[in-house]
Amino acid sequence: MLEVFSLQDCAVKAREASRVLATCSTAKKDAALRDLAMRLEEQTATVLKANAADVAEARAAGMDESLVDRLLLTESRLAAMAADVLHIAGLPDPVGEELDGRTLENGLRVARRRVPLGVIGVIYESRPNVTVDISALCVKSGNAVILRGGKESRRSSTELACLIRRSLLAAGLPEDAVQVIEDSDRRVVGEMLQMRGAIDLIVPRGGAGLIEYVRANAQVPVVAGGIGVCHTYVDRDADLDKAVDIVDNAKTRRPSVCNALDTVLVHAAIAPTFLPALARRWAGVPVEMRCDDRALAILHEAEATGIIVPAEPDDFGREFLSLRAAVKVVDHLDEAIEHIETYGSGHSEAIVTESYTGAMAFVDRIDAAAVFVNASTGFNDGAQLGLGAELGISTQKFHARGPLGLRELTSYKWVVLGDGQIRP
Amino acid sequence: MLEVFSLQDCAVKAREASRVLATCSTAKKDAALRDLAMRLEEQTATVLKANAADVAEARAAGMDESLVDRLLLTESRLAAMAADVLHIAGLPDPVGEELDGRTLENGLRVARRRVPLGVIGVIYESRPNVTVDISALCVKSGNAVILRGGKESRRSSTELACLIRRSLLAAGLPEDAVQVIEDSDRRVVGEMLQMRGAIDLIVPRGGAGLIEYVRANAQVPVVAGGIGVCHTYVDRDADLDKAVDIVDNAKTRRPSVCNALDTVLVHAAIAPTFLPALARRWAGVPVEMRCDDRALAILHEAEATGIIVPAEPDDFGREFLSLRAAVKVVDHLDEAIEHIETYGSGHSEAIVTESYTGAMAFVDRIDAAAVFVNASTGFNDGAQLGLGAELGISTQKFHARGPLGLRELTSYKWVVLGDGQIRP
Repeated sequence: MLEVFSLQDCAVKAREASRVLATCSTAKKDAALRDLAMRLEEQTATVLKANAADVAEARAAGMDESLVDRLLLTESRLAAMAADVLHIAGLPDPVGEELDGRTLENGLRVARRRVPLGVIGVIYESRPNVTVDISALCVKSGNAVILRGGKESRRSSTELACLIRRSLLAAGLPEDAVQVIEDSDRRVVGEMLQMRGAIDLIVPRGGAGLIEYVRANAQVPVVAGGIGVCHTYVDRDADLDKAVDIVDNAKTRRPSVCNALDTVLVHAAIAPTFLPALARRWAGVPVEMRCDDRALAILHEAEATGIIVPAEPDDFGREFLSLRAAVKVVDHLDEAIEHIETYGSGHSEAIVTESYTGAMAFVDRIDAAAVFVNASTGFNDGAQLGLGAELGISTQKFHARGPLGLRELTSYKWVVLGDGQIRP
Repeated sequence: MLEVFSLQDCAVKAREASRVLATCSTAKKDAALRDLAMRLEEQTATVLKANAADVAEARAAGMDESLVDRLLLTESRLAAMAADVLHIAGLPDPVGEELDGRTLENGLRVARRRVPLGVIGVIYESRPNVTVDISALCVKSGNAVILRGGKESRRSSTELACLIRRSLLAAGLPEDAVQVIEDSDRRVVGEMLQMRGAIDLIVPRGGAGLIEYVRANAQVPVVAGGIGVCHTYVDRDADLDKAVDIVDNAKTRRPSVCNALDTVLVHAAIAPTFLPALARRWAGVPVEMRCDDRALAILHEAEATGIIVPAEPDDFGREFLSLRAAVKVVDHLDEAIEHIETYGSGHSEAIVTESYTGAMAFVDRIDAAAVFVNASTGFNDGAQLGLGAELGISTQKFHARGPLGLRELTSYKWVVLGDGQIRP
């Protein structure tokens, strides 16, 4: 079924399919997605069988169990994937939305109308659920997609792609709108990155290594996230309870995600009360607090318990992705902002303060995808911020920043309606 | 004054300056621009003297007079530049604009706030007025800019940059927000294209060769226009008078610009009346009509005068930039759309028709930066479409499409204001 002879051939078929998807009705796209959700439930056994073969091969090759877990599909994971697809079917269609509509003095009616980007290439690592996620987002936004998953998940991804392609056909849409590259040769990725004109956008999903490789080598436009080195600054005027809750939530809700807290900055005036309170909250988790000298002195003075150790120099600017946090005492807001400018990665940055002036200065001056006042950085997420779903979180300024929802998979065209206007 | 020791050094200074510009008031930026407009008038003699040296050198090197004209500044051209700068000062500031503001169920107030991109690199050819245009647009949108102009215009550009830098200082802004690279070594361009992280956006302005070179080699994000192969399709249901006016305007208003008409497509049913009428209009200009066999037969049958010649095969898909147009008869709207899909460059495409269904189908199906119904493609221009001013016209779908105004030089950040929210 997936007879991909060459990447060029695959891209040509994707382009043809993208033309159909670009102008088809929302109802058709949603029908394909609802059909897919149904198939995911009905074909659970088939998908799990393919996945079991991937998992067995991975274990035989000695893959670490935490990575095997990312590869593993279960009945409940498939049900969750189906629910996500139904959710995407229920979101508003971004295609056809008109922006900035107006009538010019000469009577021309002008608007920008959202259109799909065209053909999107996605390069990802082992998680097979990405195959379904991304396909659903691309179909809904009227784009064709070429998927290059990890070698480890190839049987699972191919099986899932089969379901998606059947659902597209069932809805009267071209199956080549979703294609999986089965060729596991790494050179295929290099080739994809060069296909300017044939592929309109590349989205790498994976670790920092993959993203850096893609950014450095792509001639095709790229949207990517990257490392999230996230700070929360507890200001002199912070509400102590809010501060402990927010810092704790940002760190411990899900330490392995990119919007999780890495460094707590604390104003010197509040540090003697805040830091012991935080240490009490974190002692039982436990969260390892990697402290600068001043924070360490305060915690020792307060006889705080828990895992409290001196920070290594490179703990600042480090994405921990685990239950560890760097802790630093600063003398004023400016120092906090400078620290974030130096060590932050432009992902998610927060201040906890009751000071209006402090809050406004922080929001104005911090240059990041999302800036929070008195809220957890955990909210930097497409679903949380009202986008419905997301492909990832972009830390670049170009094209799209922050959570990538359906709209971020679109471009626009200018539509100009006249009745004979000519330009003087 | 412009002691640029290295591109790295230049980029570091630009980054520092961009931080100041990103958060300075609109009033300060506008003050710098108004000061610049004044200096352009006051310092006319100095600028013209530098320009005269450039022009003399260019002529001595045997530069073609049409290129010398692009290089040449005059008192009235400087006055026009000053007027443009004042116009940009009067436009709304895109920075700080908030989009999609809403309050979420949990009480979080969320919005996307426009912010400058940061540091923009512009690579352009000989026209010195670009130095002022781009600088004004970048300053107004809160960006620092590194300008790499043509070797031929270096004295003029350096002198103009001096005025801009003085105006920035006079307004209390960092002069390094505008820097001109005086090093004429072509390797500098290659180096700029690699400065990912240090430069946020590269805008090439010039011919197809420059743009292709930049696209192929840049690691920094690029926004560029390109070739405009523009069609106007005269439908069976076109109003004949509107059709002749629109086609004529699109071709003859300014044949050397990218939105000028290159190919007229005519429905077979209207061709016998439309083509002779167009030939009558064009006979006196004259516009050379490069016709396919059917158009040729119709014009011969009608004994049309003017320059009427058979089309060469490569006339379709060709950007003429002169008083020549390819002419082709088609049998239906679908054939016109297919022709445009095959030969168009995604710039500006128009249909002339009184048919509602035809107009809607054309607008829906044509994939171009701007699609026109019953209007001249000459309107694909930032000022004409209400953007106030433009850097150029993008034919890419990524980041910005169509005219590039001030907003297209911005990104956004998510601003999230809470009162203690944590994520469940």
